[in-house]
Amino acid sequence: MSISIGILGATGYTGAELIRLLHGHEGSSVTYCSSRQYNGKNIAGVLPFFKGTFDITLEDFDPDAIKSRCDVVFSCLPHGTSAGFISRIAGDVKVIDLSADARLHDLDTYKAWYGDHGFPELLDKAVYGLCEVYREEIGQASLVANPGCYPTSILLPLIPLLKQGLIGTAGIIADSKSGVSGAGRGLSLKTHICEAGESFSAYKVGRSHRHIPEIEQELTKAAGKTVEIEFTPHLIPITRGMLSTIYVDTHADEATLKACVSSYYKDARFVHVLEEDFPSTKDVRGTNNCLIGLAKNDRTNRAVIVSVIDNLTKGASGQAVQSMNIMFGLPESRGLDSLPLFP
Amino acid sequence: MSISIGILGATGYTGAELIRLLHGHEGSSVTYCSSRQYNGKNIAGVLPFFKGTFDITLEDFDPDAIKSRCDVVFSCLPHGTSAGFISRIAGDVKVIDLSADARLHDLDTYKAWYGDHGFPELLDKAVYGLCEVYREEIGQASLVANPGCYPTSILLPLIPLLKQGLIGTAGIIADSKSGVSGAGRGLSLKTHICEAGESFSAYKVGRSHRHIPEIEQELTKAAGKTVEIEFTPHLIPITRGMLSTIYVDTHADEATLKACVSSYYKDARFVHVLEEDFPSTKDVRGTNNCLIGLAKNDRTNRAVIVSVIDNLTKGASGQAVQSMNIMFGLPESRGLDSLPLFP
Amino acid sequence: MSISIGILGATGYTGAELIRLLHGHEGSSVTYCSSRQYNGKNIAGVLPFFKGTFDITLEDFDPDAIKSRCDVVFSCLPHGTSAGFISRIAGDVKVIDLSADARLHDLDTYKAWYGDHGFPELLDKAVYGLCEVYREEIGQASLVANPGCYPTSILLPLIPLLKQGLIGTAGIIADSKSGVSGAGRGLSLKTHICEAGESFSAYKVGRSHRHIPEIEQELTKAAGKTVEIEFTPHLIPITRGMLSTIYVDTHADEATLKACVSSYYKDARFVHVLEEDFPSTKDVRGTNNCLIGLAKNDRTNRAVIVSVIDNLTKGASGQAVQSMNIMFGLPESRGLDSLPLFP
Amino acid sequence: MSISIGILGATGYTGAELIRLLHGHEGSSVTYCSSRQYNGKNIAGVLPFFKGTFDITLEDFDPDAIKSRCDVVFSCLPHGTSAGFISRIAGDVKVIDLSADARLHDLDTYKAWYGDHGFPELLDKAVYGLCEVYREEIGQASLVANPGCYPTSILLPLIPLLKQGLIGTAGIIADSKSGVSGAGRGLSLKTHICEAGESFSAYKVGRSHRHIPEIEQELTKAAGKTVEIEFTPHLIPITRGMLSTIYVDTHADEATLKACVSSYYKDARFVHVLEEDFPSTKDVRGTNNCLIGLAKNDRTNRAVIVSVIDNLTKGASGQAVQSMNIMFGLPESRGLDSLPLFP
Repeated sequence: MSISIGILGATGYTGAELIRLLHGHEGSSVTYCSSRQYNGKNIAGVLPFFKGTFDITLEDFDPDAIKSRCDVVFSCLPHGTSAGFISRIAGDVKVIDLSADARLHDLDTYKAWYGDHGFPELLDKAVYGLCEVYREEIGQASLVANPGCYPTSILLPLIPLLKQGLIGTAGIIADSKSGVSGAGRGLSLKTHICEAGESFSAYKVGRSHRHIPEIEQELTKAAGKTVEIEFTPHLIPITRGMLSTIYVDTHADEATLKACVSSYYKDARFVHVLEEDFPSTKDVRGTNNCLIGLAKNDRTNRAVIVSVIDNLTKGASGQAVQSMNIMFGLPESRGLDSLPLFP
Repeated sequence: MSISIGILGATGYTGAELIRLLHGHEGSSVTYCSSRQYNGKNIAGVLPFFKGTFDITLEDFDPDAIKSRCDVVFSCLPHGTSAGFISRIAGDVKVIDLSADARLHDLDTYKAWYGDHGFPELLDKAVYGLCEVYREEIGQASLVANPGCYPTSILLPLIPLLKQGLIGTAGIIADSKSGVSGAGRGLSLKTHICEAGESFSAYKVGRSHRHIPEIEQELTKAAGKTVEIEFTPHLIPITRGMLSTIYVDTHADEATLKACVSSYYKDARFVHVLEEDFPSTKDVRGTNNCLIGLAKNDRTNRAVIVSVIDNLTKGASGQAVQSMNIMFGLPESRGLDSLPLFP
Repeated sequence: MSISIGILGATGYTGAELIRLLHGHEGSSVTYCSSRQYNGKNIAGVLPFFKGTFDITLEDFDPDAIKSRCDVVFSCLPHGTSAGFISRIAGDVKVIDLSADARLHDLDTYKAWYGDHGFPELLDKAVYGLCEVYREEIGQASLVANPGCYPTSILLPLIPLLKQGLIGTAGIIADSKSGVSGAGRGLSLKTHICEAGESFSAYKVGRSHRHIPEIEQELTKAAGKTVEIEFTPHLIPITRGMLSTIYVDTHADEATLKACVSSYYKDARFVHVLEEDFPSTKDVRGTNNCLIGLAKNDRTNRAVIVSVIDNLTKGASGQAVQSMNIMFGLPESRGLDSLPLFP
Repeated sequence: MSISIGILGATGYTGAELIRLLHGHEGSSVTYCSSRQYNGKNIAGVLPFFKGTFDITLEDFDPDAIKSRCDVVFSCLPHGTSAGFISRIAGDVKVIDLSADARLHDLDTYKAWYGDHGFPELLDKAVYGLCEVYREEIGQASLVANPGCYPTSILLPLIPLLKQGLIGTAGIIADSKSGVSGAGRGLSLKTHICEAGESFSAYKVGRSHRHIPEIEQELTKAAGKTVEIEFTPHLIPITRGMLSTIYVDTHADEATLKACVSSYYKDARFVHVLEEDFPSTKDVRGTNNCLIGLAKNDRTNRAVIVSVIDNLTKGASGQAVQSMNIMFGLPESRGLDSLPLFP
């Protein structure tokens, strides 16, 4: 048996990354790729490096075709758009939504941050696809809301610490830095190499980035009480890579904190705590790994946590494939067991 | 009258940056450049782009030659080494020390962070060269300790707020990011383009970077009581540029905070608060400017401050030239009134 | 007396570079900046780094205002558009056109490469602004056609050799590489940092780049007979910098070839032949310099010439300011005598 | 049966790339890794990103251990050193030498370019490992000399054209550009991110790069008469990627030339001629592919060929794995069938 896979919005960065990862995934094949803009073209006419390795004609969205030809569909459509398309196929095929449309459980919160939601019933059906935390629920799910990249990098180290009550629920600060591919393939001066290159900047400073409610939802669940965070995203002049520097109040010592996180992920293939030193984004480039470093400052009773992921892999398409593996009962690391591209 | 200038350690990045800035500085000339390694060579043999524009033969350190030929000397030597050389000329010529050897007022603090100090008497004589804050003292000084790059980016926005008592003295966090030139011209895998390029990392996480006591010394002076900070430096894969994201507790509103900083620097040529939006490092590349953005998060009672400088200019050689201008009664912006290299 | 300067299309990369250079240019001031898109806005609202250093309100194109308020106008408008605007002010004010509209002497050649020319009479009036070669003509000109970036990097080393008859007129190959700013501020996937970054590519391979007729026109004039070249442009994933590797047939030895070029530029401030070794683009970043290296391969009777410029400075705005200096009888290097931004 | 693999010099860039590729290679395992410098350390202590994915203790070179534990050994040692180590194991195990020590058939040529050769008998035994050209010989070989990166990018497009007699044997020019990883992990100012970054330069201009005799040896074999080339290498400020722009004289038309190359590689998995347009280095990053574009300039009777490879994969470790597959009768693309890391 081979799993038949559909991808909605296949020509953006997360779509191309899915194809890259699924190309090395045994027991599945990509049989349907949609693109409104390039409908009818071969994908190698849009992304030339596919030539000779991956061959498919891009199609318009067609729910009947999807139902008859796909076992699972990844949606790489933008939020706001994704829900509408998913609503027409969910229930008939398994769906993994890489947009934000199904991540928040609370409709009012969605509206406050994203605007109207056309298909609020999705919010109830979806499982939040943070694989190491919701593995069991994902295994039973027919709709998975794939987490955002920033949330993934922040939640993975914090959830075990909050569950154990080792860190304060107030005063958490996440200072995060992302490669430019997180902004997608759309054109703007912000992504022009002459303006983004050789530069570094913060954006959406203050309480304004849409990943905030998603992060707070999950931290609150882990802590069992309301958690509010301070979150500042920055743009690194690189293509891939995300690093979050997280400040938390704690009276636990460094060894206890590390042991807590390590122990939570002791069976996890992709999440690792470094015994000493701190990770670089290049250590995980192109992989589904999350590496975590941690230092305790005993004078300030604060711990500084550094986590790195590849924003397009563990922060998007890699985690989505990981969810698919869980949903279909496959080994969780299938298609994801690679070393980083180094150097 | 023309000011005769000597540079110790002229072939490193801060030495070359001094020469670049002084090349456009009217009323002075660089008459002496020392280099132990390249003693006797023309500087264009070491840094070929000087050919045809700046011509000098590198010499060994010679206190008598310096006294007879220089009005002022910039030391670009490393800490630990710089003090010894300065001690043999200070008093006879004005000195601006770009190393850390004269920045800390307290000998025990120096020893705790840097090790033994060969010439502790320097600590008493030196004025801390943060020009916008210590302009008057610098005007009277014969020895100026040029601030570190991280401290400059953190102190400029915080000092006015602490002096006015608008922010808390506890819980200050500075999450700073620097271009690689801050690590100097020495060779290591950390600066190899194949390892530093397309990557991003934190280093000296926890209470371990030597700029911490310098920052705390100056914040404590501004606040009038002990300030301890959390400081995490990161490496950006660019040559020049530094951005500090600073988190402070405050009950003041955004407008009050911005007005406080703006007002403090209302006569300053190089320090500017943006009315809205946040600066990029590229906005100040190659200039002596510091740009500051600020947002208040009313839910957390915290302000997020973003400041940018060029680590080699305002963070090193530019501020040193600014001090020289003040010491010699010249217009403060002479040689420093340039626009950034954009794009 | 101060020269009053207008800039058409002031918010693109060459416009911004003109302002940067003219900011340090004594005896002139920019009094008029046009922008169709940003008409009425302050330039710092478009390019924020100007804030506090350069202040002007962008205006729509107005020939009467220009005539009354400007001594000289730089046109940074695109080819095809520039000629129309220039035709309404030329004769009343001096004009330096950074577009290709006045570079070619032959109308049919223009049409073949660029399409219809609205104001062919410009072609006769314009002097080709390669300053080191046409200094005298520029001094008498009221309309200067500023050379293209690729042509500048190729013509400067070749013209002396062709004038002296030291190299063959057949078989010249120029393999050129440019930073991305040469493509301008417009948006395309070719300039998206995620696609252009960490990559290298050729474009317009074969006889298709529009700089070819300009290069051949000038080489033909220098040689006194028809010269055809092979020209391949490439895109370097950097902002600024251009390097041309040029292959020529010759029976002269290396010393003779170098002496020929050196001698031709012996009084030139900006063009230098390296005695040994070869230049990097970083050696000239932000400067108006052209550095040239040359090696003779005696087995193939071929010389390999490497020339570097900053495509936005000597390749565009810097050379335009140099022409302005010549046109107004100022020292040729005024405003251009800077060292490169290193590192 | 599983192939047991040894790697000499495992901690450099080509060694790490071998491990990355072999990690996804079914039917083999890396059982021996030597490192003189890090003897006794776990490889994850040297290259931290291996932690959790690849685990081996580095050992000193030990011919007996190799003979008893390895079926094949890859040597990633530098030229001059490699031959000595290989001579002690060749004959007992299959060897693929990534250095230049076994590439040249003629001892005098080796001496002229590299100096003395300690084990000249290797030169006779080795097969040149350009897989698409010498597939049969590699299948019979016990010692394969893995081609250099520049030669691979130049030979692949030229060999079919020379074999067919479609291009001239005189006047071939290869203007090649390489990412910095080609210079290896050693430290020098040339690889310092502050000097190599945001720059572009030529090096070893004229007849001086050691890859020249290797290229000429193979072109001469293909042409059946002596071929001399002009070769200029350049450094691109990226980690991985190589692009060669090759100029050849020809009277054949574009379609004929493309058909010749396409036809030669019609069964090749990794070498492809683009029907139109030209490849970027990013199109092959991390893959074993070589993409080729070609344009004919009918006015100059010259063709311009652009080829791209990843210098560490098809230009080094990937081609070495391809040779191993051929030597052991495995499918040629095993472990190498991946899509590029995009973006």
